[in-house]
Amino acid sequence: MGTRVSGTRKTSAPADSGYLTLGPIEGSTKHYLTVDHLRVPKRRVHLTNGEHLDVYDTSGPYTDASAEIDLARGLPPTRRTWNCPEPVDGASTQLAWARAGIVTDEMRFVAAREGVDAELVRSEVAIGRAVIPANHRHPESEPMIIGKRFAVKVNANIGNSAVRSSIADEVEKMVWATRWGADTIMDLSTGADIHTTREWILRNSPVPVGTVPMYQSLEKVNGDPASLTWEIYRDTVIEQAEQGVDYMTVHAGVLLRYVPLTARRVTGIVSRGGSIMAAWCLAHHQESFLYTHFDELCQIFRRYDITFSLGDGLRPGSIADANDKAQFAELRTLGELTSIAKSHGVQVMIEGPGHVPMHKIAENVRLEEELCEEAPFYTLGPLATDIAPAYDHITSAIGAAMIAQAGTAMLCYVTPKEHLGLPDRDDVKVGVITYKIAAHSADLAKGHPRAQERDDALSKARFEFRWTDQFNLALDPDTAREYHDETMPAEPAKTAHFCSMCGPKFCSMRISADVRAYAEENGLVTAEDIDRTIAEGMAAKSAEFAEAGNRVYLPLEASSGGAV
Amino acid sequence: MGTRVSGTRKTSAPADSGYLTLGPIEGSTKHYLTVDHLRVPKRRVHLTNGEHLDVYDTSGPYTDASAEIDLARGLPPTRRTWNCPEPVDGASTQLAWARAGIVTDEMRFVAAREGVDAELVRSEVAIGRAVIPANHRHPESEPMIIGKRFAVKVNANIGNSAVRSSIADEVEKMVWATRWGADTIMDLSTGADIHTTREWILRNSPVPVGTVPMYQSLEKVNGDPASLTWEIYRDTVIEQAEQGVDYMTVHAGVLLRYVPLTARRVTGIVSRGGSIMAAWCLAHHQESFLYTHFDELCQIFRRYDITFSLGDGLRPGSIADANDKAQFAELRTLGELTSIAKSHGVQVMIEGPGHVPMHKIAENVRLEEELCEEAPFYTLGPLATDIAPAYDHITSAIGAAMIAQAGTAMLCYVTPKEHLGLPDRDDVKVGVITYKIAAHSADLAKGHPRAQERDDALSKARFEFRWTDQFNLALDPDTAREYHDETMPAEPAKTAHFCSMCGPKFCSMRISADVRAYAEENGLVTAEDIDRTIAEGMAAKSAEFAEAGNRVYLPLEASSGGAV
Repeated sequence: MGTRVSGTRKTSAPADSGYLTLGPIEGSTKHYLTVDHLRVPKRRVHLTNGEHLDVYDTSGPYTDASAEIDLARGLPPTRRTWNCPEPVDGASTQLAWARAGIVTDEMRFVAAREGVDAELVRSEVAIGRAVIPANHRHPESEPMIIGKRFAVKVNANIGNSAVRSSIADEVEKMVWATRWGADTIMDLSTGADIHTTREWILRNSPVPVGTVPMYQSLEKVNGDPASLTWEIYRDTVIEQAEQGVDYMTVHAGVLLRYVPLTARRVTGIVSRGGSIMAAWCLAHHQESFLYTHFDELCQIFRRYDITFSLGDGLRPGSIADANDKAQFAELRTLGELTSIAKSHGVQVMIEGPGHVPMHKIAENVRLEEELCEEAPFYTLGPLATDIAPAYDHITSAIGAAMIAQAGTAMLCYVTPKEHLGLPDRDDVKVGVITYKIAAHSADLAKGHPRAQERDDALSKARFEFRWTDQFNLALDPDTAREYHDETMPAEPAKTAHFCSMCGPKFCSMRISADVRAYAEENGLVTAEDIDRTIAEGMAAKSAEFAEAGNRVYLPLEASSGGAV
Repeated sequence: MGTRVSGTRKTSAPADSGYLTLGPIEGSTKHYLTVDHLRVPKRRVHLTNGEHLDVYDTSGPYTDASAEIDLARGLPPTRRTWNCPEPVDGASTQLAWARAGIVTDEMRFVAAREGVDAELVRSEVAIGRAVIPANHRHPESEPMIIGKRFAVKVNANIGNSAVRSSIADEVEKMVWATRWGADTIMDLSTGADIHTTREWILRNSPVPVGTVPMYQSLEKVNGDPASLTWEIYRDTVIEQAEQGVDYMTVHAGVLLRYVPLTARRVTGIVSRGGSIMAAWCLAHHQESFLYTHFDELCQIFRRYDITFSLGDGLRPGSIADANDKAQFAELRTLGELTSIAKSHGVQVMIEGPGHVPMHKIAENVRLEEELCEEAPFYTLGPLATDIAPAYDHITSAIGAAMIAQAGTAMLCYVTPKEHLGLPDRDDVKVGVITYKIAAHSADLAKGHPRAQERDDALSKARFEFRWTDQFNLALDPDTAREYHDETMPAEPAKTAHFCSMCGPKFCSMRISADVRAYAEENGLVTAEDIDRTIAEGMAAKSAEFAEAGNRVYLPLEASSGGAV
């Protein structure tokens, strides 16, 4: 597990806070790119050969050894010092500014983070193919971008519930999730102290925070969907907007006439927000107030620059229900709402499934892009099968990698506890790492510039038996090191010239290092040399090989050093 | 963890054997289909609603409560009592018999196991698109089929090494791996007692056993590749053939002229067998003896009906090396060898990578099918990224699911310890379950008949709050139950009408069950009713909804029973 040290404690800190995870990830230090007055964080991985690799860093000041952390005071409100352009047509949003040709500090920050040109960021935001969720009232956040032209992002859900958890647990979960790479977090709290929990999270979160305002609204009516009103919901949205929530899931596409479409499903309606609105619609025989009041919602959102995450309240909850009429009927309505939101200058992304077998995944992206003007797609997995509860981080990583390859911009993680219980600290980490794998695999498959640098650095370290570098370049250095040490606990093994699978006498890595040395000694150094050698059928080279004889392939244990 | 009870101990059992896992998986019993004199095993999952689901069962007698297990005596040699046809053109192989139009007992057994017609099995074996690895000297095995028209299969590697492990550990690992669904196992032992370990495994294995004879050959020359000879290798193959090994990995495609192709790779040659042969070729300046003696090898294999698993000795060991000249040059040679093997009446499958980014996966299957006459493809993962050591079961499950969807017939599992150390008992289980997920996801995507039955049964149980059934239908009932109980340990929760994610007052499953009841009460029972209702814009139904009022949506806690 990661470094666990106590953070600075103040009397006003949550009374039950046990610890806070501080300090850099093993083998790394915080590094900042300076772009005018902007300081853009990177994680610098230091290698034993004197080289380093800088990687995208979501963890905020918590991994900066020089930062002073005080949960009660919160993170520095850095964005307050940045330039804030005048409203355009009444909208103070990244979308409105991008359309007006203005490159904001937020855009320049994310461009430096992604290693791309700021104009690409502006143009993608302007056409609505990317969003920068950044509520003006969350100045502590380090802006990031969600869009298919950029690195695939990962969201981690946290939040207590009626059953268990505490405020301190949730703050630490946020710190913990962003340490391992969560690009945004959603606070899905449903229990007591919902407002206070969110306040602690927002003031201390370096990443955008999303919520589902319907959950708190339902708390206010004691859990009875029929008692909900537009006014209660609106006031909740404003309350959360004032606190600084960066994006909100709104299930405005669950229309009255779609509800019976779910009646014959194997798993009905599995979205909490969707089922609440379905209950309300049927109880009142009226169209959803989220739909009928959508224009008013847009007017609130654009004041703060809150990004819509249009919820898929009718997403499939099983393989049997994937890509059915209910799901796609709602998606069409989300497309209509996307157009309305954008006409108000409000940024929009679209939520997606759920449970989908592999052969039906691409169709989800194709339809979303067609119906929703290519607004960024933000999917939950999808799970590629229903039969593996306790392993749904894996069933869903398969679907997540594939849907991201097809164009999904952000993946909502799934933990091993999905369908079974509430994730604890370990589950959060496993969920985030698993989804970083899916996101990075998609970045590779999409040819994202520089994505392969890390794979190449790690594989090169592996081939050269630089064990420490292999660990430190890994998504989870601590667990990689721990697993290795179970087999070979001795420190010398960290530089041993054999891998732990094979043992000293029998290592393919060692043998192929010899092949390389041999090829170089014999002048087989360029691709052309090799091609020529193949063409000559090795005839000419045979004589050269003869001279080297068995020297290259001495019994391997003779050259494997003293370890083990 | 699974049930752990002591097996029958005999004095000749491995002295250090600690335990053997016996007894059925939670919620299931062994069930046999009877087809004439053949008894075909199934696992019957018993549901609380009185229904049951039969699933494919790889676990042999160890999960049969009525079986008497005696490791020293071995499993009953059942196949000795089956009909064995005369040789055809000198070959006593499933391939030769299938070509001659003979449906063997092995074919009838696998047809019943897969739930398909025996003629489909015969015709797929006859054209070499499927194999039934079944050495005549392994009569204890329950035959299975590997081919893209059948369920995707999973192999688990076991085997001790110079570094650690013991015979008893390996036998238990075999029992453990097949308990969770391994369709074959490979014994990759490289240390002491290699012959004895294999004997214990074969006499007690209900699934086909594969090996890489090169490993034992190398032991015989004290680990020096240059000292290997065809005679030493041949004698090792015969020794293992006599013991009953069902399929053997042979790296006969690593030709002398391909070796320099690997010199400029990021990770050179990562296959152990491949690197040994590369070392031998360079040391002797000669073509591989596996290639030059391939006809003699075929003559041995056809006597026993050993299946070739033509090894990909030049498979990529990193994203950077995927689909390169070395890999595909070797694949072309494997195609040539496939044709030779089949001309001898010998069954063949082809091994595949390795490390491949998602966008390069399909090309591997396409080329394999084109070059190797659609011989069954048997791949290791592939890993979709290099950057997650300690999570390579997951990085590779992404690639495995995709390559299986594209046509791969069997997947070699990868455990969390890949690249880092030797898998222990827990790693073997996680590896097998992860690969069952990949295989089953591919079965769904390929539209395999009946694959979705299990997903539907589990999702239906989930929707109806039958927690026990949900656990027992899962790939890993024990862990699913354990995770659930962490949040809600009380027994009444097993039938609670809310899921553990949301708590009692706030369950979407509960709400949508109400939606369904409502639709049924209001006559929305057929798809046509629903379509008509949408078409009418809900106008006609509005009046009916009005009558039901808030009754359907009483505050939910009132109806959630007494649990928690």
